[in-house]
Amino acid sequence: MQIGRHVHCTLVTVLHNDGNEEEEGYSPTGEVTAESYPNWLRFHIGINRYELYSRHNPVVEALLKDLQSQRITSVAMKSGGTQLKLIMTFQNYGQALFKPMKQTREQETPPDFFYFSDFERHNAEIAAFHLDRILDFRRVPPVAGRLVNMTREIRDVTRDKKLWRTFFISPANNICFYGECSYYCSTEHALCGKPDQIEGSLAAFLPDLALAKRKTWRNPWRRSYHKRKKAEWEVDPDYCDEVKQTPPYDRGTRLLDIMDMTIFDFLMGNMDRHHYETFEKFGNETFIIHLDNGRGFGKHSHDEMSILVPLSQCCRVRRSTYLRLQLLAKEEYQLSSLMEESLLRDRLVPILIKPHLQALDRRLRLALNVLAECIEKEGYTAVVEHDFDPQPAASPLHQAPRAR
Amino acid sequence: MQIGRHVHCTLVTVLHNDGNEEEEGYSPTGEVTAESYPNWLRFHIGINRYELYSRHNPVVEALLKDLQSQRITSVAMKSGGTQLKLIMTFQNYGQALFKPMKQTREQETPPDFFYFSDFERHNAEIAAFHLDRILDFRRVPPVAGRLVNMTREIRDVTRDKKLWRTFFISPANNICFYGECSYYCSTEHALCGKPDQIEGSLAAFLPDLALAKRKTWRNPWRRSYHKRKKAEWEVDPDYCDEVKQTPPYDRGTRLLDIMDMTIFDFLMGNMDRHHYETFEKFGNETFIIHLDNGRGFGKHSHDEMSILVPLSQCCRVRRSTYLRLQLLAKEEYQLSSLMEESLLRDRLVPILIKPHLQALDRRLRLALNVLAECIEKEGYTAVVEHDFDPQPAASPLHQAPRAR
Repeated sequence: MQIGRHVHCTLVTVLHNDGNEEEEGYSPTGEVTAESYPNWLRFHIGINRYELYSRHNPVVEALLKDLQSQRITSVAMKSGGTQLKLIMTFQNYGQALFKPMKQTREQETPPDFFYFSDFERHNAEIAAFHLDRILDFRRVPPVAGRLVNMTREIRDVTRDKKLWRTFFISPANNICFYGECSYYCSTEHALCGKPDQIEGSLAAFLPDLALAKRKTWRNPWRRSYHKRKKAEWEVDPDYCDEVKQTPPYDRGTRLLDIMDMTIFDFLMGNMDRHHYETFEKFGNETFIIHLDNGRGFGKHSHDEMSILVPLSQCCRVRRSTYLRLQLLAKEEYQLSSLMEESLLRDRLVPILIKPHLQALDRRLRLALNVLAECIEKEGYTAVVEHDFDPQPAASPLHQAPRAR
Repeated sequence: MQIGRHVHCTLVTVLHNDGNEEEEGYSPTGEVTAESYPNWLRFHIGINRYELYSRHNPVVEALLKDLQSQRITSVAMKSGGTQLKLIMTFQNYGQALFKPMKQTREQETPPDFFYFSDFERHNAEIAAFHLDRILDFRRVPPVAGRLVNMTREIRDVTRDKKLWRTFFISPANNICFYGECSYYCSTEHALCGKPDQIEGSLAAFLPDLALAKRKTWRNPWRRSYHKRKKAEWEVDPDYCDEVKQTPPYDRGTRLLDIMDMTIFDFLMGNMDRHHYETFEKFGNETFIIHLDNGRGFGKHSHDEMSILVPLSQCCRVRRSTYLRLQLLAKEEYQLSSLMEESLLRDRLVPILIKPHLQALDRRLRLALNVLAECIEKEGYTAVVEHDFDPQPAASPLHQAPRAR
């Protein structure tokens, strides 16, 4: 199941003035070319078959800073989603997806709530980016927190009448709005500032779909999205055998990617992974983009073991992932400490309250337990896929995330 | 403005077996006639031009007990309201309006919420009945708290398919339902039991509209029910002069009734008094029924002074009400203590948390301040209407609410 060696090829190419198409990117030493490009374009250029950005790419930090500080020149509502999201365009033509704060950091998802009616959390989007980076996946586009002035940075710059019309002043004299969407877009669920400052997450856009088409895949372990129905995987313990025989899971690394995503989602308690996307250009031999993580980090006091079902049913894991998890379980590289330290750099610190951080360590042990049982049952080599020489996976952690 | 003396006449008459129509009721000594009637019917028979029940009427306690314990034989959704309410019918053919618990006792209405999107609170309905009784108005139909088994007492006995279809089991394995209504009737706002017990308020029905028609009046101090618009009374300080010249406020006791209702609503922080009702049979010379108090007791940390505007604009009050308020402001008859003691008898004790009780004393002083300013400005006799000999109003409090 090891990836074949491909020509190193980036996603987006830039046409230079002389008319010659040229591939841009970062050399293995992290040296930057095309320094005059805005950071969002440099991020786009750096995307390749294996990851959204390379481990030491300085553009990521620069892009995070842009998300926090670039002047917002226009705002539109994102159509299609169930909950309100805004598309923000910056002075340098970069774009980002804004999710407003809806809950305080302390609020837990009520126990009677279904995963599909849970709020999307701006802090979950931020935390998910950091978690994915610490896990060494680099499959989440950069996300930063930002305090947005609702009057100047949303109401005054939007050309969307429908959005504009939903602004009002609350009885407590705060600026509020609710926009248009199918869930929670009404006066009762309005988003209100203090008095007009609102927290939100800003996720960097991926390259425009016209430049880099994406393919949407149904997650084989998708939930039923129904109050009473169960999904097939919930009732069939041999469900993975079926999946393993179905393209694209019958070859390449896609199943291992699903296992990575499973672990990622379990750590943050995200039950809402109904679909995933890949870049069409790279065919089936490419990574899964970890988009849309707003329903993670809803409950710190509960570990949703059903999220781990793909792992326990398939008993497969990348060696690099397995080593990384073992390292993060050690006292010296404790996942919760690395997360806390990494999140310290966001403007909206603290992104996660302590109980959510502690839950990460607890869940990491639970995931490793599942893998240990798999290995005991099926043997190490049947479970752990030798994807590469262990050295590179283990060493960067000594610098990361500090160095990034 | 004193009420003329009328023949004592009850609302509902009962046709006896011999075909003679006979008026039923309670003698001034509180002696009960028609003992074989169910308590709800005895309550209906006791309603007169001046009050829903007399001060020492034992039927009220009996009816409260019925609301808590009578077997529920059928359940239907109440049509028309914005939030879900259920009509429950008992074994003895009595009926009550059920409002389910939606918030914990500790939750305060968020500061950015408008009065018209606030939840209706079951405990506010219960507390309002007790408060109205302590204020000596007796204009709220009896309300009791009850723990209802959602499976046995709602789902299994309803013939309403639409209601029945909305039942489901939550992820925490609790029974939930949401019914049909224009606000908050969706999976995200489902009402969930523990595992199938849910708290609610049960308000005794008034006589059927076919037997005792009611007239609905627009409250002159109605709010705009709009996020941006103001009502006339909010911008015109002389608004009351206009009202005083408009029937039915130009004669009789209607304006004094509005002042009573104003004080009642201010004490509990209810901003949602858009309409009120009277019994048609009694014409204009009858009391205002204090129905629908679920939006009281939303915030304990805020005194909404605008609710008192009718009082400060009109500077009128019944002498009996004024004496009662003064009495309740005294250390020995502290309103909060009487409320706490009265509420102790409800099944769902505690109905109000301490801060709500304390707010009552604070608001009582604020209402008395407004009246003191009125008296200073316009003189005692212009403000305080001599409605009757003060003795009866002051004395019953020595026994109440213990004796009832």
